[in-house]
Amino acid sequence: MTGHTWLDLPDDSPFGLANLPYGVFSLPDGRHRLGVRIGDQVLDLGAAARATGLRDAYLDAASLTPLLGAGRPVWTALRRTVTGWLSDPAHRPAIEPQLHPLAEVSLHLPFEPADYVDFYASEHHAANLGALFRPGSPALTPNWKHLPIGYHGRAGSLVASGTEVVRPNGQRRAPEDEAPSFGPSRRLDIEAEVGFLVGAPTELGRPVSLAEFPEHVFGVCLVNDWSARDLQAWEYVPLGPFLGKSFATSVSPWIVPLEALEQARTTPPPRDVPLLPYLDDQDAPPWGLDLTLEVRLNGHLLSRPPAASLYWTAAQQLAHLTANGARLRAGDFFASGTVSGPAHDQRGSLIELAWNGTEPIKLPDGSTRTFLEDGDEVVISATAPGPGGTRIGLGEVTGRILPAA
Amino acid sequence: MTGHTWLDLPDDSPFGLANLPYGVFSLPDGRHRLGVRIGDQVLDLGAAARATGLRDAYLDAASLTPLLGAGRPVWTALRRTVTGWLSDPAHRPAIEPQLHPLAEVSLHLPFEPADYVDFYASEHHAANLGALFRPGSPALTPNWKHLPIGYHGRAGSLVASGTEVVRPNGQRRAPEDEAPSFGPSRRLDIEAEVGFLVGAPTELGRPVSLAEFPEHVFGVCLVNDWSARDLQAWEYVPLGPFLGKSFATSVSPWIVPLEALEQARTTPPPRDVPLLPYLDDQDAPPWGLDLTLEVRLNGHLLSRPPAASLYWTAAQQLAHLTANGARLRAGDFFASGTVSGPAHDQRGSLIELAWNGTEPIKLPDGSTRTFLEDGDEVVISATAPGPGGTRIGLGEVTGRILPAA
Repeated sequence: MTGHTWLDLPDDSPFGLANLPYGVFSLPDGRHRLGVRIGDQVLDLGAAARATGLRDAYLDAASLTPLLGAGRPVWTALRRTVTGWLSDPAHRPAIEPQLHPLAEVSLHLPFEPADYVDFYASEHHAANLGALFRPGSPALTPNWKHLPIGYHGRAGSLVASGTEVVRPNGQRRAPEDEAPSFGPSRRLDIEAEVGFLVGAPTELGRPVSLAEFPEHVFGVCLVNDWSARDLQAWEYVPLGPFLGKSFATSVSPWIVPLEALEQARTTPPPRDVPLLPYLDDQDAPPWGLDLTLEVRLNGHLLSRPPAASLYWTAAQQLAHLTANGARLRAGDFFASGTVSGPAHDQRGSLIELAWNGTEPIKLPDGSTRTFLEDGDEVVISATAPGPGGTRIGLGEVTGRILPAA
Repeated sequence: MTGHTWLDLPDDSPFGLANLPYGVFSLPDGRHRLGVRIGDQVLDLGAAARATGLRDAYLDAASLTPLLGAGRPVWTALRRTVTGWLSDPAHRPAIEPQLHPLAEVSLHLPFEPADYVDFYASEHHAANLGALFRPGSPALTPNWKHLPIGYHGRAGSLVASGTEVVRPNGQRRAPEDEAPSFGPSRRLDIEAEVGFLVGAPTELGRPVSLAEFPEHVFGVCLVNDWSARDLQAWEYVPLGPFLGKSFATSVSPWIVPLEALEQARTTPPPRDVPLLPYLDDQDAPPWGLDLTLEVRLNGHLLSRPPAASLYWTAAQQLAHLTANGARLRAGDFFASGTVSGPAHDQRGSLIELAWNGTEPIKLPDGSTRTFLEDGDEVVISATAPGPGGTRIGLGEVTGRILPAA
């Protein structure tokens, strides 16, 4: 399979040799460095390259962006190199000093965001939100099963996991209000999502087919797309979500390479309508991903959204995004949209879990929640099937709510 | 006023000393350089700085982005320096060799785009599109006069003026179609807009007030937000425009500094509803801009959209965009949305001019247009009032349609 490491690591570690996710960390000197996580340690890639005589400018960068632009052959070769460093005992003397305990490093947003697109790929989520936001209309809009609905988000609002989230101010107008008012959002929510990092760029006018997905996508992580539902409800017709989403979007620190998710690939749900050829994945390699997310509020498990239930795959999302000739840049990032499964305890947002405030969530401390309160901490984590019955860890994305400014 | 230049320039040149817009150009060696336009020449800023002994790293960059990040005091000082170079005859020996005829240089997108936001600030345009896209509903949505509606566009799709625009493919479904089909857009349109370039960055959580607008916005240019109306109509509910807009957005090459538009500042139209304090510009400095756009199709003047008629000013757009704490980055760019005035010949898009195809536009060659045909060339230009009855030129943004791939 993937061999053994000379590190003292349990066989079932979610961050073993089969995973090797990439991130950006700093030591007390503050300089940002590329790292690979192995167990509960981080390998300094630039230092490891120097110690082994490897000359690779990508590894001395302060973000993943140059490596992203290098493309699949470079990614594959690097993964082989890092696997060799951590499995061949001959490399141990050079490599071991380049390992740092996770507890002693700071983790950062691992790439410089180019464009950010948020999709809406969960049928259960879209149907729930349709029922809540557009009562009386069909839950899904007529286009929903023909194309992966998405919109551009604010790339500059992507923040590293752990960044505190200040409750946003904004305009909101409840149905009973005569005019809108301005102030702190009263309906602050989460969205548990899966994120996909591009990767090799394209020229304007060059669509990316379903089959080309792994040539352009580097890896996968977790996203919390914080959402101010009251701002969103008032602003989103006719041009879509704007300030309700653009105050902060948290990204997990470890980008799990696509290769580490081979065992997680699965066939997406049956398609209810025939798809146009550029989206038809019936005979294409399956890019459903069997990730199980876990959403925790102040330590309490709220739900376990299953990414395998997403109607649209990331390969379809990328094919759609580029179908009109839109170009890709290294650092482009797209997210699945809220992952919600069919069951109540598989919903990936509070507006669904507490059904728009009508069914408050009871927490073990006796308090209840409809939306987030100041001081609340949300942790979204996930694992995927790995080789030989092991699990691949995606780590976690966390954030705590601070009062509005 | 602004003094006289030692160049042989007509007093009424739209690119005289009162303008001095910034751009990025290259000579046959291909290297991108910062330039300032004066008359029909470009001053090489890096070369001029070296020739006069000025050491300023911003001026040796390949894009405006580092200068953008430097902020208003640096921008003001640089404008004073450039004005001195071009007006004081003592500088002539050092400066004159750094001038290149416009006809001998290539012009490029002058900044590295960070986030791109497109607003919807023209009441006439919004009402026209509401009537066309949502017949039977009120033309303006209930939120329209309470906040400047906007959405994030694709920053990676911003292209330099002159870039050929390939007709996009995509999904479209006419009302009579049973299912969507995929192919070249049949309803390819333009949107004549004004663009605003940021400028000094902010930290997450730091709104920009109306009064702070000139501290953060560097200058103004022209935008053609090419739009595939059939793709847009099918995709845009519920999350807004996506592929109908993301294939290409053309930007004019010259960024006119805010200081050059002092005489263009004007009071925006009367507000029909009271505005919340962060948007209330009744007692704030007026940031309406009296720019007159001209839209030409294959050389024929189609319309003269007046930017002074925009309901929302750029200062209000920036205050709204940051009201939730969204941060600004150097290279952020936002556009007004289509500029349409109340008169028929002031409309800034073909869907309005030809009323959704029902009133074809007659061209002098005897042909008619409802939407763009392959080979069509669109030029959007504008001028603004300058000092002493002169005009400030914003130059033009051009693009020609190539057949779909």
